[in-house]
Amino acid sequence: MTTMVFENIRIVMVATTHPGNIGAAARAMKTMGQENLYLVNPKIFPSAAVTARATGADDILANAVVCDSLAEAIKDCVLVVATSARSRNIAWPTYEPRDYAAEMLRAAVDGQVAILFGRESSGLANDELEYCHTMLQIPANEEFSSLNVASAVQIICYELLYASLASGHNSGVAEEGELVTAEQMQQFYEHLEACMTDIGFYDPEKPKRLMRRMKRLFNRARPDQNEMNILRGLLAAAQDAARGGKN
Amino acid sequence: MTTMVFENIRIVMVATTHPGNIGAAARAMKTMGQENLYLVNPKIFPSAAVTARATGADDILANAVVCDSLAEAIKDCVLVVATSARSRNIAWPTYEPRDYAAEMLRAAVDGQVAILFGRESSGLANDELEYCHTMLQIPANEEFSSLNVASAVQIICYELLYASLASGHNSGVAEEGELVTAEQMQQFYEHLEACMTDIGFYDPEKPKRLMRRMKRLFNRARPDQNEMNILRGLLAAAQDAARGGKN
Repeated sequence: MTTMVFENIRIVMVATTHPGNIGAAARAMKTMGQENLYLVNPKIFPSAAVTARATGADDILANAVVCDSLAEAIKDCVLVVATSARSRNIAWPTYEPRDYAAEMLRAAVDGQVAILFGRESSGLANDELEYCHTMLQIPANEEFSSLNVASAVQIICYELLYASLASGHNSGVAEEGELVTAEQMQQFYEHLEACMTDIGFYDPEKPKRLMRRMKRLFNRARPDQNEMNILRGLLAAAQDAARGGKN
Repeated sequence: MTTMVFENIRIVMVATTHPGNIGAAARAMKTMGQENLYLVNPKIFPSAAVTARATGADDILANAVVCDSLAEAIKDCVLVVATSARSRNIAWPTYEPRDYAAEMLRAAVDGQVAILFGRESSGLANDELEYCHTMLQIPANEEFSSLNVASAVQIICYELLYASLASGHNSGVAEEGELVTAEQMQQFYEHLEACMTDIGFYDPEKPKRLMRRMKRLFNRARPDQNEMNILRGLLAAAQDAARGGKN
């Protein structure tokens, strides 16, 4: 296994309802060499039903990290990827897993990567999607695209394994600059919202469509630390200008 | 869906023990556009446990063909393919599913194709393997290669769907909005530079490293027209604020 890269990848299951799906996902992960499972508000965990379906992947369940919020589960991640079958009204940058697997491995060379799997019934909520840089859409039957969540985990992990075998991925080229974490991105968005309010461009009372668009734009750009510093400085300067006038 | 070819493909589950796996396999098949399920001596079928796990793929269960022997299930097939995780003492011609999917589709153009999935515990027996032309081995963790049988069905059907879409799928960003031209990007950068100067964040006399960093960032994001309008509005608002003070 190309463990060094896989160690930096986590599977994040959000509000999973059926315990059997958690067990099945753990087994799916292990068959493909993935080990890090995060559970955000699982309905039932741990339980006998989870363990029964894991069939030998008990170690993954034992080491699973249970979180109260998605923000907590991904706060140290430099790349956050959603999986979805639904179409969205605001399009996120969307890739097929096969076309994006190598990019996830590359990001995992020196940063944490999270891959999110939503509720069985309704997937990921829009405010959860806003943490994501990109979305993976698994090709499926257009008339019946409802993949079981553990099956989706299986396919994504399969593509990651495949990509890692294809490239012998230990010498991946790192990004030039150090990437920012999800937590830093959130802080930036809060700053951006405050700044836009200060300069009279944004009314927090109005719907959030504007902020969503901005998030989509900057998530896509995946700023590095240096660029983030510039952006933060830029926002602060605009706020100062709004307060003090011309100079 | 490429139904004409898929119509000639069947998934054959041999002596499946757990009814839930049959249901899960039916769902996996349907998500990937496969419809023909053959069951050779299933331990329990039909049953409520099968149907529960099929979640909407009941039609596949209703049309499933139950056979007394593998020979009967595959007698009209021109290509019979086994799936296995185990290594065999007599080596069969073995392919990875991805490398063989197109060949299966080709054979299905004018003949019946069977893909066999063995028992949960012990896979396919040697006398069953003897019906097979080739074997598919799904890449997996060498230390834990025990895929759930429905997961194996999921992956094989995924590869078949993928191969059938092969020329149609695009890699990269499926942008919803119209992209901006290089000229518009230049105008944006001029506006950005003017704005940063107005708010006191940028001194045009100093080296251009800052602008270069901003260009790299926004080029990477590839804004669409809508996003560009927002960005331009934001810059204008910051300039107004710098001129007029607080409001």
